[in-house]
Amino acid sequence: MHGILSKIEALKSLRHDLFNHDVLLTWTCSDEAVRAIVLVAEILEDIARGGVSLRSFESGLGVAMFRDHSTRTRYAFRSACNLLGLATEELDESTSQIAHGETVRETAAMVGFLTEVVGIRDDMFLGEGHKYMLEVSASLDESHRAGVLLQRPAVINLQSDLDHPTQSLADLGHISGRFGGLDRLKGRKLAMTWAYSPSYGKPLSVPQGIITLMTRFGMDVVLAHPPGYELVDDTISAARGFAATSGGSFTVVDSMAAAFNGADIVYPKSWAPMAVMHERTRLIRSGERAKLADLERDALATNARFTDWECTEALMKHTRNGDALYMHCLPADVTGVGCAAGEVSRSVFERARLDTYREASHKPFVIAAMILSTRVSDVAELLSRRLHEGRPRRDGAR
Amino acid sequence: MHGILSKIEALKSLRHDLFNHDVLLTWTCSDEAVRAIVLVAEILEDIARGGVSLRSFESGLGVAMFRDHSTRTRYAFRSACNLLGLATEELDESTSQIAHGETVRETAAMVGFLTEVVGIRDDMFLGEGHKYMLEVSASLDESHRAGVLLQRPAVINLQSDLDHPTQSLADLGHISGRFGGLDRLKGRKLAMTWAYSPSYGKPLSVPQGIITLMTRFGMDVVLAHPPGYELVDDTISAARGFAATSGGSFTVVDSMAAAFNGADIVYPKSWAPMAVMHERTRLIRSGERAKLADLERDALATNARFTDWECTEALMKHTRNGDALYMHCLPADVTGVGCAAGEVSRSVFERARLDTYREASHKPFVIAAMILSTRVSDVAELLSRRLHEGRPRRDGAR
Amino acid sequence: MHGILSKIEALKSLRHDLFNHDVLLTWTCSDEAVRAIVLVAEILEDIARGGVSLRSFESGLGVAMFRDHSTRTRYAFRSACNLLGLATEELDESTSQIAHGETVRETAAMVGFLTEVVGIRDDMFLGEGHKYMLEVSASLDESHRAGVLLQRPAVINLQSDLDHPTQSLADLGHISGRFGGLDRLKGRKLAMTWAYSPSYGKPLSVPQGIITLMTRFGMDVVLAHPPGYELVDDTISAARGFAATSGGSFTVVDSMAAAFNGADIVYPKSWAPMAVMHERTRLIRSGERAKLADLERDALATNARFTDWECTEALMKHTRNGDALYMHCLPADVTGVGCAAGEVSRSVFERARLDTYREASHKPFVIAAMILSTRVSDVAELLSRRLHEGRPRRDGAR
Repeated sequence: MHGILSKIEALKSLRHDLFNHDVLLTWTCSDEAVRAIVLVAEILEDIARGGVSLRSFESGLGVAMFRDHSTRTRYAFRSACNLLGLATEELDESTSQIAHGETVRETAAMVGFLTEVVGIRDDMFLGEGHKYMLEVSASLDESHRAGVLLQRPAVINLQSDLDHPTQSLADLGHISGRFGGLDRLKGRKLAMTWAYSPSYGKPLSVPQGIITLMTRFGMDVVLAHPPGYELVDDTISAARGFAATSGGSFTVVDSMAAAFNGADIVYPKSWAPMAVMHERTRLIRSGERAKLADLERDALATNARFTDWECTEALMKHTRNGDALYMHCLPADVTGVGCAAGEVSRSVFERARLDTYREASHKPFVIAAMILSTRVSDVAELLSRRLHEGRPRRDGAR
Repeated sequence: MHGILSKIEALKSLRHDLFNHDVLLTWTCSDEAVRAIVLVAEILEDIARGGVSLRSFESGLGVAMFRDHSTRTRYAFRSACNLLGLATEELDESTSQIAHGETVRETAAMVGFLTEVVGIRDDMFLGEGHKYMLEVSASLDESHRAGVLLQRPAVINLQSDLDHPTQSLADLGHISGRFGGLDRLKGRKLAMTWAYSPSYGKPLSVPQGIITLMTRFGMDVVLAHPPGYELVDDTISAARGFAATSGGSFTVVDSMAAAFNGADIVYPKSWAPMAVMHERTRLIRSGERAKLADLERDALATNARFTDWECTEALMKHTRNGDALYMHCLPADVTGVGCAAGEVSRSVFERARLDTYREASHKPFVIAAMILSTRVSDVAELLSRRLHEGRPRRDGAR
Repeated sequence: MHGILSKIEALKSLRHDLFNHDVLLTWTCSDEAVRAIVLVAEILEDIARGGVSLRSFESGLGVAMFRDHSTRTRYAFRSACNLLGLATEELDESTSQIAHGETVRETAAMVGFLTEVVGIRDDMFLGEGHKYMLEVSASLDESHRAGVLLQRPAVINLQSDLDHPTQSLADLGHISGRFGGLDRLKGRKLAMTWAYSPSYGKPLSVPQGIITLMTRFGMDVVLAHPPGYELVDDTISAARGFAATSGGSFTVVDSMAAAFNGADIVYPKSWAPMAVMHERTRLIRSGERAKLADLERDALATNARFTDWECTEALMKHTRNGDALYMHCLPADVTGVGCAAGEVSRSVFERARLDTYREASHKPFVIAAMILSTRVSDVAELLSRRLHEGRPRRDGAR
C-alpha cells in the first residue's frame, strides 16, 4: 500500500500529453509519456493484485479491429477493458483485405458513437498497418469535430507493421522489474537478435519496437541479423537518435554470438526479410495471388540458410555470468517441440518458460494504462481514489 | 439540463403500451408510442452527451440473432445494450437457413432464461423475416407463461423483410432535429426513391419503413421507382391510411425527377424487385440453388436498365431551394467510389457524408429507447432519476 | 423470502472444499459439495426470480474454451457469468485439433491473468476431454504458483468425454423440485436408457453423468442399452459404489421396456458405441481422415439395427402410473419432427416439451453456483448479503 502510494506520487510529476491522444508509436511519445504508461501499468497491477476494483467506466465500449488472428491479443485487450469497466466489440476483418478511403472513414464513424477506445492490430502488411491506423485516427477526428461522435475514442496500436507498443512497453516493465527500475538500466547490454524459424511472414514490429524503446534508457542495444533481414530505416534512425541522447549505444552486428557476448538481456526472435514483406503487400494489392505461394517457398528457403541462428545453451554461456534474461513475445518456435529446428533450444526455453509468461502478464495492464492515460485527465488522482475506495474486485474473496 | 427536463415532462404525457411488448413494426404502434421512442432516444442522447451514466440494469443479456451479416447493426445493438448495463450474446445463424417450428420454439426458450431483450435481424427473405419474429415472440410467450423464463424478453426488430424500425425512427429523429420537431414536419415533401445499384437482393424494408412512418406526420411522401420495383401491398396501404389521417399525402410516381421536384428531403436508395425477392425465397426453400445464380444475373440485368436513377447535382437543383436534406441508411453505392455507377454522385454524397453519419448516430439511442420503453414501466421517472444521480459515464473525464 | 432464508441457513451446514478448487467430475465431489451446488443454484434462481441483483464481481473474466459448437452452452455460461458480474471471452478451437503439452500450458497462462473461471467443453474425443481439462488445471496451478497469475481461476467442466456435471446437476435440481427435495428421492426408479437416433458421435457424458450422480441419492437407477453401447467402466463402478453406499441400486438391462417398467423418471437419449468413439479419436490423432467417413457409415448402420429403441406412448404406459417424468438434455431427435425415426415419439415429446425447457432452465444457475462455490469462501454469507441489499436487477421494473 505504501509502495503504491509513492508510485502514485511519482506519477504526478510526469508531465505528458497522452490525454485525448492516440498511442501508435512509442518513438513519437515523450520520455515522460513512456514512463507514465509503464508506471501506471505497474500501479494497476499492484492494485489488482491487492484485490481492489479498478472499475472507472460505467459504460462504454472498447472496439477491437483485428486484421490478424490473435487469441492472446484479444484476451489482453478484453481483460484490460473489463478491468476498467468497458465492454468490448470485435471487428474481425479479413486478413487479405486492405481497406481504404471511404470505407475506413465510414466504418470508423459507425463504430465510434459510444466508444472510448479503438484497439487495432494490423501487422501483416509492411507499409500498410500504421497508415491504416492514421486513417482511422483522422476519420475519428473528422467525425468528432462534426459532432457526430459524443467523444473522440483513443486509437491504440495493438501491433502494426512498424511498432508493437503494448509488447515493448510490457517488455520494458518486465526488464525494469528485473533490474530494479527504469533508472537502473543504463549500461545494460540488450541483444535483439534474429533467430531461425521454419515459418514465413512474421512481422518486423517486435524487433523495431524493442530497439527504438530500449535505447531510450541508456542501454547498449545490439541488433543482430543475417543479411537481408534489415529493419525499416526509420526505426534504425530512431534507435540511433535515442541512444545518442540517452548515453547508451546502438550497434548492428551480423552474428548472434557477437550480440550475446556479455549481454544482460537476450531477445532471440524470428522475423521476415523486409523485401519479402514489401513484395507480399504488393502481390496482395495487385491481386497476383498465384505468386504468393512462390514467394512463401522462396522465403522459407532463404530462412533455411540460417538454421544456426538458434539460442542454445552454448550461446547463453557467453552472456553476462552465463545468465542473461531470456525474453520472447510468445509463442516461441522451440527446437524439438513445435518444430525440428527453431528459435531456441528446448532446455533454454524450458528454464525461461514461466518467466516469459510473466513477461506477457504485464500486457493487459499496459493496455489498461494506455486507456486510462488517453481517456482520463488526471490518472494519479483517479488511481488514488480507487485505492482509497478499496472496493473489492471480487466480493467475498477473503 | 433545462432542455432535458422539459423533454422528460413531455414524455410523461405520452400514453402508450410498449411496456412488456415487442417492437416489430412501426405501423402497428400508436402515434404516442412512436413519439415516445423518438423522444426517449433524444433524451438518452442528451444525457449521454452530458457525460452522465444511463446504466439501469445490474445484469441481464441482450441476445442478438443475426440472419444477415452486419457490423453496424451489431455495434448499434451492443452499444445500446452496454449503455443501459446489459451484456450481449450473439447467435450468428447461417443466412441460407430458414428455421421453423420446434427449432425456433426451443431456441427461443434456451436463450431467454436471463435475457431482457432479443434483437433480430432477418431481412434477407421476403415473406419470412417478420414471420420468424412472430414465431420467436410466440415462443417466448409460451415459455414465459409456463414459468420457464424468469421474465418475458422483449423482441426488437433490427430489420425484417417488412420494416426497419430502428432505421426509420433514427431517420425520423434526424428529420425532426433538422426541421425543429415532429410538429414542424407537416407539409414537408419527402422523396423516397429507388436508385440504381450494381448489386442484387437489397431488402425492401428501408423504403417500406420510411413511407409508413413519415406519412404519420403530415408530410407529403412521394415514392418513386421503375416498373417492377413495387413495395409490399400492405405497406402501401398503411402509408395511404396514415397520410389520410395525418393530413399529409402519399403518392407514387415513376421518375426520380418528379419525386425530387420541390422536395425538402430526398432518400434515394436501391432495393430489389419484389418478384425477385419472392423467387429467391422460393428457390432457397426448395433447394434449387443452381437457379439462384440465374436469378441474380437476371436481376442485375434488370437493374442495369435503370442506371439513370442516380441522385445527381442536376437533380438536387430541383429540390426546395436546391438544398434538400439528403438521407441514406448507409453504406451508399457512390458513383466513382465503390462502383462505376451507383445510387448517388460523388459530389452530392461527399457534401452530405458527415450528415449521413449523424443520421446513423441516432441508431444506438433508438435501440436503447426501445429497450427502456419495453422493459421499464415508467421511463420518464427512470430518466429523471439517472439525471439527478448524475453519475459520470467515465470517471475522471473532466 | 422466508423460504430463501431457510435455504441459506441449510447451506451454512454443508461443509465442502469447493473453494479454490475445480469442478470436473461429480463423482470426485463429496455428497455435501454436490448438495451445496444444487442448493446454491436453487437460491440463486429464487433471488433472481425476485428481481434482486446477484452481481458480486466488479470485474473479471469467464473464459469459455469450446472444442465443440454449442449455442446453448455458450448462452448458459455467458448468462451465469453475467449474473455475477463477469464478462466472458470465448476461445473457439477447432473440433479436429487435439492440443497437448506446451500449447496447453502456454494458452492456459495467457488467458488466465485476470480470469476468475475457465469453462471447458471438450466432449468429442473419448479418452481426451477430461485429460485436457486436467492439463489446463495443472497449467493454471503452475502459473499461479509462479506468481504469473493474480489468482488461480477455477476450471469448470461444461461437458467432457466422461462427465457433464452442469447437465446432471441441473437434472438433479429438476428431479428434486419435482419430488419434493433431495431427501425424497430414495426408492424412486430412474431409467437412463439408450434411444435410437439417425446421428453419429453423440458423447457418452450425459448417461455417465446421470448414473453416477443419481445413484448417490438412494434411487434405483437402471441403465439400458443395446449390446455395444456400454459406458466407460469407471463410471459403471462409480455408480455401483454410490448405489451401495446410498441404499439405492444400480442395474444394467438390455431393453428399454424393462427399464421403463414402473419407472418414476425416464431419460431416453442416444449415444455412440464406445468402440466407435475410441476409434474416432485414434483416426483423428493419426491423421487417417479418409477412414472417418467409413467409421461414420458403419456407426450409422449399427445404430439402424435398434430403431425400436424409441420412447413411445406404449412404453410410457408401463411407467409408474403411466406418468413418469420424461427428461432430456435437448435437443431431442423427435420422430416425425427432425427425423423420420428418433429417440422419442412426437406426442410423448410434445407433452413433456415445456418441462424439458424448465429442466434446461436450471443450467445457468448451476454454472453460477459452481462459480460462486469455487471462488467465494462463504457463499451463504454473500447470498444473504445480496438478499438484504435488495438491489434491483433491472431498475424501474415494477
